[in-house]
Amino acid sequence: MAAIAILGYGTVGSGVYEVLNTNTDSINKKALNPITIKYVLDLRDFPGDPVESILTHDFEDIISDDEVEVVVEVMGGIEPAYTFVKRSILKGKSVCTSNKALVAKHGAELLRLAKENNVNFLFEASVGGGIPIIRPIVRSITSDKIEEITGILNGTTNYMLTKMSEENLEYDDVLKDAQAKGYAERNPAADVEGHDTCRKIAILASLATEKQVNFEEIYTEGITNITKTDIDYVKKIDKVIKLVATASFDNGNVWARVCPLILEKDNPLSGVNGVFNAIKLTGNMLGEVMFYGQGAGKLPTAAAVVSDIVEAVRHKNINIGVHWSEEVQPLTNIDSVDVKKLVRVSYDDKAAAVSAVKHTFGDVEIIDGVADGEFAFITGVNTEANVNEKINNLLNSDSIEDILSTIRVELR
Amino acid sequence: MAAIAILGYGTVGSGVYEVLNTNTDSINKKALNPITIKYVLDLRDFPGDPVESILTHDFEDIISDDEVEVVVEVMGGIEPAYTFVKRSILKGKSVCTSNKALVAKHGAELLRLAKENNVNFLFEASVGGGIPIIRPIVRSITSDKIEEITGILNGTTNYMLTKMSEENLEYDDVLKDAQAKGYAERNPAADVEGHDTCRKIAILASLATEKQVNFEEIYTEGITNITKTDIDYVKKIDKVIKLVATASFDNGNVWARVCPLILEKDNPLSGVNGVFNAIKLTGNMLGEVMFYGQGAGKLPTAAAVVSDIVEAVRHKNINIGVHWSEEVQPLTNIDSVDVKKLVRVSYDDKAAAVSAVKHTFGDVEIIDGVADGEFAFITGVNTEANVNEKINNLLNSDSIEDILSTIRVELR
Repeated sequence: MAAIAILGYGTVGSGVYEVLNTNTDSINKKALNPITIKYVLDLRDFPGDPVESILTHDFEDIISDDEVEVVVEVMGGIEPAYTFVKRSILKGKSVCTSNKALVAKHGAELLRLAKENNVNFLFEASVGGGIPIIRPIVRSITSDKIEEITGILNGTTNYMLTKMSEENLEYDDVLKDAQAKGYAERNPAADVEGHDTCRKIAILASLATEKQVNFEEIYTEGITNITKTDIDYVKKIDKVIKLVATASFDNGNVWARVCPLILEKDNPLSGVNGVFNAIKLTGNMLGEVMFYGQGAGKLPTAAAVVSDIVEAVRHKNINIGVHWSEEVQPLTNIDSVDVKKLVRVSYDDKAAAVSAVKHTFGDVEIIDGVADGEFAFITGVNTEANVNEKINNLLNSDSIEDILSTIRVELR
Repeated sequence: MAAIAILGYGTVGSGVYEVLNTNTDSINKKALNPITIKYVLDLRDFPGDPVESILTHDFEDIISDDEVEVVVEVMGGIEPAYTFVKRSILKGKSVCTSNKALVAKHGAELLRLAKENNVNFLFEASVGGGIPIIRPIVRSITSDKIEEITGILNGTTNYMLTKMSEENLEYDDVLKDAQAKGYAERNPAADVEGHDTCRKIAILASLATEKQVNFEEIYTEGITNITKTDIDYVKKIDKVIKLVATASFDNGNVWARVCPLILEKDNPLSGVNGVFNAIKLTGNMLGEVMFYGQGAGKLPTAAAVVSDIVEAVRHKNINIGVHWSEEVQPLTNIDSVDVKKLVRVSYDDKAAAVSAVKHTFGDVEIIDGVADGEFAFITGVNTEANVNEKINNLLNSDSIEDILSTIRVELR
């Protein structure tokens, strides 16, 4: 019998309870030992709920019970999650978590402590919800050097961009719809400003470099400035816009970025719609592989947590080596990374504006007919800094009224 | 130092050598022990090749060398591969293989022998080439009951169908092109008749049921009968045709099938083009997840083999439990499985033919204008046996000349 404790009985915590109680027999067979939920920790009471008899408000009940082998942290946030997880590991308990903020910030330390204490710190659910991605990187893609990780890592923003594209809606309208459906929170900043995606790519980049990639250093731009007109241009050029996280590993030159990106339709990420997520890895030997599935939601996320519980129970007192040291991985500033951008300009005099654009950017194709008093074009490939400087220079032309938007376009 | 031997220095074998010699440092770090290729077995000589000094023609050199921890079987075919693999396991050596025929036929026995001898039998590369799929099923999707596995498992046929669709070509022309490009063999039967796909879905279905799914019992239909006109109909109804392997696990009711299938465009498999493969799993908790990548090719396949070598070296004398018993899993005959089909009929009298179709199938939509003297329609959903019987009954109508083709259509 392997006793576990669940910290937090919210969406994911109740999902973990449900998964364990639905697929009990097959899970126990795979864990090689029957799993028993001995405690559920929550500040709230749940009268009449099946967990009522195992509910505790006091973490000390759990930490002091030597029978508890695995602690499942699904509370979210840094504190008290960090303290509870650290104390659990130091007491010789394995920890499974879905908490991306905790993993991005303290993953390296918690992995080291787990190793020192001969237990495991597992976090499959922290990226990509139900999509197996952490274990494939750590256990399957072991013969490759990962050259790039790129993905759609946030279901809320992908739902919103998909709906804006498919139904010709403005940002504010789809945000309200996403909030009404429960896909976006009342305060949507963590999703729409890209912070959630940023932490997830930081975790993946840390696993790829085996060092600490600090999420605070990753350039992050959300979808709050994307308008229906932007999307009309994207559709006019037969491409697709997604909020894309990228981490690139070119020997010592590592950079990472979260931003809206215009994709070619034959990029497999371009077909990932609605609340789905996908992560594409490029290895120097195996080429491109992509993992696709539900990136959030109660049961998919809980299923990933429970697969970690199975792994933890199977590996009692056997540390599964995961290489992610506390040494900080320096990141190259994205100013020196090559990009091209779709640029929308408004004009006073169209012919003169076109001429100004071609003077600065060469003979680029002018994309017009989408909205009055403006046109767009795609710059050539140059560093972020150079492209931005050239775009700003356009404002020196009297014929150009304003730069309406700039959106990065996938490089091939 | 972990010594390995590679059996077979063909495409995959030379790829394994190349992967190990390209990413040596990172592989050795992940294996926790430096890997040395001590032998390469091949009947041929390779004068001047770097393997010349470690080449042997005699398997006895390998089996009798106790230093060899891992035997890498990349010869293909059942014999002598089966004998070599079995003897290696019985001598306490782990085996990694890319050989789908061997795994489909003898996987259960070889896993049992590996367990009895405290070694490992690993076969990540046998399905999906470089795509991590075996380890994710065995180690990641452990909290779910798998309800369905469906996938595009053969790059040759997917390349051919993609090219027929995109360039309006006939089957014979794309086959010649695929042969010229090295994607199809001189004798293409194993690919185009679906046998390769059949063995792969048998392996996946065996892992899902944890019993022996015999490939001989899986209904298998290749792409040899698919014509340009069939594809014109598929395009006319805005769908996509793929050679799809399906295995369905509905409690006791297990069935499997390989056949051309018309997919909706929002099915993520529909966007898998060219030589790429993808495998979609549906779990009762996590919903749909899909794994996408290069399903064949020297380096992708070799990368998967080397990831198994890493796993084998890390788990010296520790059997990684994989549940796949020799007990045969009975399969439900697909005659009782629900389907719908696109049916092409040629007619003497169109109005009478349409009337005959509607008499038999109800008010189905008639798809015409694709080719002279014929039209198509999609049947309602019924069992395979009932749909086939109704289709045959159409021939009783004098107005219907012939049934030109029938192709299954994805159910929703």
